[in-house]
Amino acid sequence: MHKPFLGTCYYPEHWSPNRWASDAQRMSNLGLSVVRIGEFAWSRIEPQPGQFDWQWLDQAIDTLAAAGLKIVLGTPTATPPRWMLARHPDMLAMDEDGQPRGFGSRRHYCFSHDGYRQESVRIATLMAERYAANPQIYGWQIDNEYGCHDTVLSYSDAAQRAFQRWLADRYQSIEELNHAWGNVFWSMEYDNFENVGLPNLTVTEANPAHVHDFRRFSSDQVIRYNRAQADAIRAHSHAPLIHNYMGRITDFNHFRLAEDLDIASWDAYPLGFLLDRSGADEQRQLAYQRQGEPDFQAFHHDLYRGVGRGRWWVMEQQPGPVNWAPYNPAPLPGMVRLWTWEAFAHQAEAVCYFRWRQAPFAQEQMHAGLLRPDSEPAPVMSEVVQVVDELANIGSIEPAAAPVAMVFDYSSCWAWETQPQGQSFDYFALQLALYRGLRRLGLSVDIVAPEIDALDAYQFVIVAGLMHWNPTLLAAIESFDGIVLVGPRSGSKTENFRIPESLPPALPGLNCKVAYVESLAPGAERPLQGGGYVQNWLEALETDVQVLERTADSAAQPVLVANENLHYLAGWPNDEAALRMLGQLCKAANINTHEMPPGVRQRCTASHRFLFNYNAFESQYDGVVLPAAGVHWQTL
Amino acid sequence: MHKPFLGTCYYPEHWSPNRWASDAQRMSNLGLSVVRIGEFAWSRIEPQPGQFDWQWLDQAIDTLAAAGLKIVLGTPTATPPRWMLARHPDMLAMDEDGQPRGFGSRRHYCFSHDGYRQESVRIATLMAERYAANPQIYGWQIDNEYGCHDTVLSYSDAAQRAFQRWLADRYQSIEELNHAWGNVFWSMEYDNFENVGLPNLTVTEANPAHVHDFRRFSSDQVIRYNRAQADAIRAHSHAPLIHNYMGRITDFNHFRLAEDLDIASWDAYPLGFLLDRSGADEQRQLAYQRQGEPDFQAFHHDLYRGVGRGRWWVMEQQPGPVNWAPYNPAPLPGMVRLWTWEAFAHQAEAVCYFRWRQAPFAQEQMHAGLLRPDSEPAPVMSEVVQVVDELANIGSIEPAAAPVAMVFDYSSCWAWETQPQGQSFDYFALQLALYRGLRRLGLSVDIVAPEIDALDAYQFVIVAGLMHWNPTLLAAIESFDGIVLVGPRSGSKTENFRIPESLPPALPGLNCKVAYVESLAPGAERPLQGGGYVQNWLEALETDVQVLERTADSAAQPVLVANENLHYLAGWPNDEAALRMLGQLCKAANINTHEMPPGVRQRCTASHRFLFNYNAFESQYDGVVLPAAGVHWQTL
Amino acid sequence: MHKPFLGTCYYPEHWSPNRWASDAQRMSNLGLSVVRIGEFAWSRIEPQPGQFDWQWLDQAIDTLAAAGLKIVLGTPTATPPRWMLARHPDMLAMDEDGQPRGFGSRRHYCFSHDGYRQESVRIATLMAERYAANPQIYGWQIDNEYGCHDTVLSYSDAAQRAFQRWLADRYQSIEELNHAWGNVFWSMEYDNFENVGLPNLTVTEANPAHVHDFRRFSSDQVIRYNRAQADAIRAHSHAPLIHNYMGRITDFNHFRLAEDLDIASWDAYPLGFLLDRSGADEQRQLAYQRQGEPDFQAFHHDLYRGVGRGRWWVMEQQPGPVNWAPYNPAPLPGMVRLWTWEAFAHQAEAVCYFRWRQAPFAQEQMHAGLLRPDSEPAPVMSEVVQVVDELANIGSIEPAAAPVAMVFDYSSCWAWETQPQGQSFDYFALQLALYRGLRRLGLSVDIVAPEIDALDAYQFVIVAGLMHWNPTLLAAIESFDGIVLVGPRSGSKTENFRIPESLPPALPGLNCKVAYVESLAPGAERPLQGGGYVQNWLEALETDVQVLERTADSAAQPVLVANENLHYLAGWPNDEAALRMLGQLCKAANINTHEMPPGVRQRCTASHRFLFNYNAFESQYDGVVLPAAGVHWQTL
Repeated sequence: MHKPFLGTCYYPEHWSPNRWASDAQRMSNLGLSVVRIGEFAWSRIEPQPGQFDWQWLDQAIDTLAAAGLKIVLGTPTATPPRWMLARHPDMLAMDEDGQPRGFGSRRHYCFSHDGYRQESVRIATLMAERYAANPQIYGWQIDNEYGCHDTVLSYSDAAQRAFQRWLADRYQSIEELNHAWGNVFWSMEYDNFENVGLPNLTVTEANPAHVHDFRRFSSDQVIRYNRAQADAIRAHSHAPLIHNYMGRITDFNHFRLAEDLDIASWDAYPLGFLLDRSGADEQRQLAYQRQGEPDFQAFHHDLYRGVGRGRWWVMEQQPGPVNWAPYNPAPLPGMVRLWTWEAFAHQAEAVCYFRWRQAPFAQEQMHAGLLRPDSEPAPVMSEVVQVVDELANIGSIEPAAAPVAMVFDYSSCWAWETQPQGQSFDYFALQLALYRGLRRLGLSVDIVAPEIDALDAYQFVIVAGLMHWNPTLLAAIESFDGIVLVGPRSGSKTENFRIPESLPPALPGLNCKVAYVESLAPGAERPLQGGGYVQNWLEALETDVQVLERTADSAAQPVLVANENLHYLAGWPNDEAALRMLGQLCKAANINTHEMPPGVRQRCTASHRFLFNYNAFESQYDGVVLPAAGVHWQTL
Repeated sequence: MHKPFLGTCYYPEHWSPNRWASDAQRMSNLGLSVVRIGEFAWSRIEPQPGQFDWQWLDQAIDTLAAAGLKIVLGTPTATPPRWMLARHPDMLAMDEDGQPRGFGSRRHYCFSHDGYRQESVRIATLMAERYAANPQIYGWQIDNEYGCHDTVLSYSDAAQRAFQRWLADRYQSIEELNHAWGNVFWSMEYDNFENVGLPNLTVTEANPAHVHDFRRFSSDQVIRYNRAQADAIRAHSHAPLIHNYMGRITDFNHFRLAEDLDIASWDAYPLGFLLDRSGADEQRQLAYQRQGEPDFQAFHHDLYRGVGRGRWWVMEQQPGPVNWAPYNPAPLPGMVRLWTWEAFAHQAEAVCYFRWRQAPFAQEQMHAGLLRPDSEPAPVMSEVVQVVDELANIGSIEPAAAPVAMVFDYSSCWAWETQPQGQSFDYFALQLALYRGLRRLGLSVDIVAPEIDALDAYQFVIVAGLMHWNPTLLAAIESFDGIVLVGPRSGSKTENFRIPESLPPALPGLNCKVAYVESLAPGAERPLQGGGYVQNWLEALETDVQVLERTADSAAQPVLVANENLHYLAGWPNDEAALRMLGQLCKAANINTHEMPPGVRQRCTASHRFLFNYNAFESQYDGVVLPAAGVHWQTL
Repeated sequence: MHKPFLGTCYYPEHWSPNRWASDAQRMSNLGLSVVRIGEFAWSRIEPQPGQFDWQWLDQAIDTLAAAGLKIVLGTPTATPPRWMLARHPDMLAMDEDGQPRGFGSRRHYCFSHDGYRQESVRIATLMAERYAANPQIYGWQIDNEYGCHDTVLSYSDAAQRAFQRWLADRYQSIEELNHAWGNVFWSMEYDNFENVGLPNLTVTEANPAHVHDFRRFSSDQVIRYNRAQADAIRAHSHAPLIHNYMGRITDFNHFRLAEDLDIASWDAYPLGFLLDRSGADEQRQLAYQRQGEPDFQAFHHDLYRGVGRGRWWVMEQQPGPVNWAPYNPAPLPGMVRLWTWEAFAHQAEAVCYFRWRQAPFAQEQMHAGLLRPDSEPAPVMSEVVQVVDELANIGSIEPAAAPVAMVFDYSSCWAWETQPQGQSFDYFALQLALYRGLRRLGLSVDIVAPEIDALDAYQFVIVAGLMHWNPTLLAAIESFDGIVLVGPRSGSKTENFRIPESLPPALPGLNCKVAYVESLAPGAERPLQGGGYVQNWLEALETDVQVLERTADSAAQPVLVANENLHYLAGWPNDEAALRMLGQLCKAANINTHEMPPGVRQRCTASHRFLFNYNAFESQYDGVVLPAAGVHWQTL
């Protein structure tokens, strides 16, 4: 039985202790169940190295607990205090230009710095020892928003030494590395691992195999760092371990990191993300300026449900205007309710609003909270009250299996950032485009890791832009009876960033080779015989399998081909073509589809059908009239 | 009695001494009264440290004086010679990326470097000692164009140490600094002042309170540097001290710096400024490409009249194409005359053309002068001759009081650069937009410092975007009977860059709170019930005072509210709405207005009404036909 | 008799020796005559300092020779191995921001580093000693693509010391340098050469005379470096010396460098260059996306024919999609044949396709070859076969004299990069615009160095944008009877980057002075009385010679003036105006012209007239129907 709940993020250290009890009581009265605290408070917990002040945190936890609130306690390692830098002057990350990323904001540590990792374990251990026995501790948040502000990649000395060790582990001999990377090209061969530098500040592009191993290494450093804290806490606590991931940060492998945690969560800022990372064009940005991109949140909900192996939260939910996007309008009235219900429809366990009260100082003073700085309720409050009421009445929201799965591969993100081949090729954008097509067909989607070992739960599986095949996935595909759509660039490299000998897509069971590829500038799209066109990317296929779709020009190039259930899509379809092709493949997979009106989306669980209107105007679907920003559900 | 005069800028060191006498005679014959010299000549005055060559400068001054010219003598400290760098290797400013800003152009010193400040005092003292008794010295220019080329902010070691001392002075204890800045946020607390760094190279944005104090400090360093020279000269000379400010350089507080000087001047380059800093959109740039932005010069005239406490010059007037803008067309014939008369209409004491003769070498060889490099008159010369004639005949131009005052606050410029909240929010642009509205109503405007202690001279006062209130201004407003318009963002911070407890605008006498703000992307403007729209910025007001104007959407948000004479404008009106609202408020203030045709502007003094046609075509106003670039005046 | 031939670029070190013989046989069977090898193979030739492995290279050369192929052997100095950096840690070039340009790609050496130059001489000497006697060595390629990746300018310590020595040689005394540069401006005077820095990291622009001397010096360093290798090889070999220049890389003086070589060659990538350096606007980029800019290749063919004193090759010809442009489409079928024939029509001795087989690894794995990575023929192969057949049948292509010469001056490229005065002024773009006009009139053009001593071979000579006159050219013009067109900015500086005393264009025989210049923003073009307009640049002429054309505005400024055969063009004509004016001048020069349809070009030799259709659609000219990408020739 799925009974989601609400929470908020609170910073007792920002306010006089006099306020804590009334704040806690107001949270509780409002109907919130959980409160996250502590994740930036290191300078208050340990004001000087080795000198601790636990009293205030004890009191804050007791006060919140006394009001019936459960607590998610964060380790404060995203914000090491100033004295840490004096102890470890070389702990700073270095940017690609070789500049240190200094103290004065947050996330200024290098994941490869052993000393700082040990300090992080130390503080996490102390917190776990102190609070593990407290029954009000719901769980632990480790650090905060890994990778935010471009902090995964560091070009520090510590990173360089660690990378050399990582390479020595991976390749065992320098000859093997030289061979794997193809270093004979341009006389880039190394004599020993100590001579391998980081792939920044080269005259022209570095070897993509070099860059890609650096990306893998950098992801592994995050995982190693997180695991050290996770192990430290687990030694004392059985409570769930959580991290709050971000939107469209793909610099580390979330699936692998999450293996050391219990619950995935993410920080959902639909309006900020629309402008600064959704990839929406100007027209789309204007249409959804106060609502957010209609598929961006859902994509992450489904991604993090996969990352969390079913358990996931929204740890920070935008409640009003934020401070960090290029422009910061207010959500359309109703949207915070919509976002909350959309998360629940995608099986979120909890949605926590960031933050309880707007801070009148420091970097985020223009970031709305549930309360204004003067402690009066912000406009969002009425929507939270409404959600609390609705939650009390809706009953259990029973999960339903999704008919479609999409494989999402972090390593492929890195690969095509390293080698876009055409500047509009972006792995995430390709996934989002196909996901949008499925959503416009009214479908629920699972997003799965590329090492998935069974696909039988699905009728239709999409693998697009996958850099290289792994044996587990190949075996799963081989034994899968449903429809498989393999999208452009899949299998186009080996694990070592080489073109496979048999040429892409190198998929057993599909006799087809990519002879060459073209990247297409805006305006150079190629029309398709069935309507719509191919944009960004088009592959020239050499094949003798069935051709389902061709370009509409004189070349009549095959674009969609099939051998039984295996399909290959040799280009990047625009929205119209994607909708059409995905619809045809769903039909082949015996999946019922319903084309949604623009801006309207649905999510069906086993118990309910939810409809969401991202439009700023009234819309209709299936006899239901949805007001602007409207949510509607019906029991199934 | 106001009898303005003309001058030019001359570099005797650029030319053979053989030419000096004839140059001086031509200047005199032309009708010029004053000539500025010396401000870049350090390497000729002191070729080696401690070795002086005064002879040439003596001779140059004597030669110019012999032709009846008065001299403004510049201290040459904007261009320390190469040997200075050998004496003070750490005198260079550092840019935000930590790179030294090297020798080879100009302004390569850090304002915080004590050694260089002492060298500057030394040379200024020597010049004052030598020439103070010379009756032909009209006055002194200290340094040249403070802040040009982004030279106020320096991230050098000298700056860091000085900033730490400045903070220690301001806050007395590190606890007080931590509290004022809200450093508990993100564990940014410091143990001592020696640990406070400069706010560059942080991972994400630094604390705005930290940045803002660095901006205040940096401004203070300019003032301290200038005062040291001013004191040195005043010890020997009673002649006026002058600095030549620039267009739209706001990195230091000009009002405060000017307290140590006698005359404000500025360097007016209307065509260069149109393209590189006026903020005019592409269409406006094309319409005024050879005339300049119609309000940009006047705004600075009025600003520097305020900065100079009534005494102000144009020290450098563009006479033809310049060399430094993205494109450098020639002024439309007539425009140099127009610019000159516009300065006089705004009560300039003098207009000096930069420069006498175009230099055929070095950085500014493509910058026009009154003479071509071959010493023939440039096209501008006929316009200068005409102005000389006109000046002889116009009689005294008697100053008139302006009915409207606008408060201009440098600190607010810094505040909203640090925290724009929406990328189109710019303090200067907001002032210029409101100023344009007043000018389109035919009004004369005073621009005043935020510490103004009496407003009684005015019927209408505008305060827009003011970061925080000061008691002097609040008292002045309280005792003012005229119309007050307080614009968006005013009072939105305390002095320490915090949101005030009572919420903005925190203006006594106006019961109104800004519940939240929205920054608006281009295309997301909100229409107004009275016509036009709000762009860039819109505040949600909670108020029970009279609402004069609302948005035209379903929210019908209050945009203009009033309590008796106090008005609050909760958004940034576009040109149409600004014109309309300002017109209504002028009516309430009993100010007569006349809407000017596009591109036509007027300025009324007590003795004359001047009309200026910035259009490249003939225009009419009030029965007067103005040719393209035309100037017209009539006696009142 | 001109019998061109084909070749390819091959990297035996990239492939198993087992493949070499069959590769060689396939090349030979295909009809290729020459194969270039070796230019990136240093780490295989000398795996450790002083330890050589010649065996594989001996075998590769023998294998290729055994198949009848001639070999161009490259010195591998563009890619020093990693151990070189350990021997010479200070050999790296430094970028303008003072960052080293590190190991990990290619071209990471500073031309001024004496130690690396000696290492380069050492390896070149060893290769020459070993292979000079081999009759299969057709010639030598020295290094690879000088200047690619912006590698001519280096701001290293080695460069600074060498620059100081270069200046001391040039000026003999520091007083002379100060005078020449006009360092009195802004007190930039130096006491000694050791104090002269490089012109980077200044606060605002450095002295253009300083920058220009640094550009001259940097060019000289490339020449000195190349000459050292050339001398080393010539000491052992009589085979021709070659370098493969690039498209639109103008950072060193190719004419002067080529004096030490025997054959010029260039690397022609029409599709990549269209997008990343042709300057084509968006519309033109789309129209020619799969064909390349219609005049860009021909311009370089004519330029490098001049640079090579008649002997020139295409050393690398794009055969399919490349990997490095913003977008990388495939050539339209037929274009590789067209490009090949266009090179031959412009008297190329050879066209070599880059590369034989697409590499499946490292930086260029997405760069097409004649073979795919799986050794199957790429689509281009059928076009190569066709060219081989056609070559066998066409007979000798006899060179014909061009009626028109254009002077191309590298130093002027640098001058206007240093001082564009308006951001759209670009020397190369001006030359290409005039060249396009000539091509649209159906003409053949020679591109000549500015030191040309006789013009009698031509009927019409164009000199546009030439920074300063040299006596040789002035004498050649004086004794020339044909039509001379001198274009804007010519003679506008002295050799020391000063405005000449008599003002530009300072051309004896043409009584005309440029009083001032205007740079024109897009949208600010000035119409011409004869049609079309002046864009980018317009000079105000003071002249009493005949005015052939004026602006169509009220100023009626002279734009084209003439004194007998000498013409001066005082602005940058748009395409329409250029075509019209050039047509009139050709008529005056008794040159027959034929206006070509858009996208169709011709080249007439003494034996053949070639027509090329760069359009993606069928076009007609002079009764000939040309398919898309079609080539047509007829015997004359």
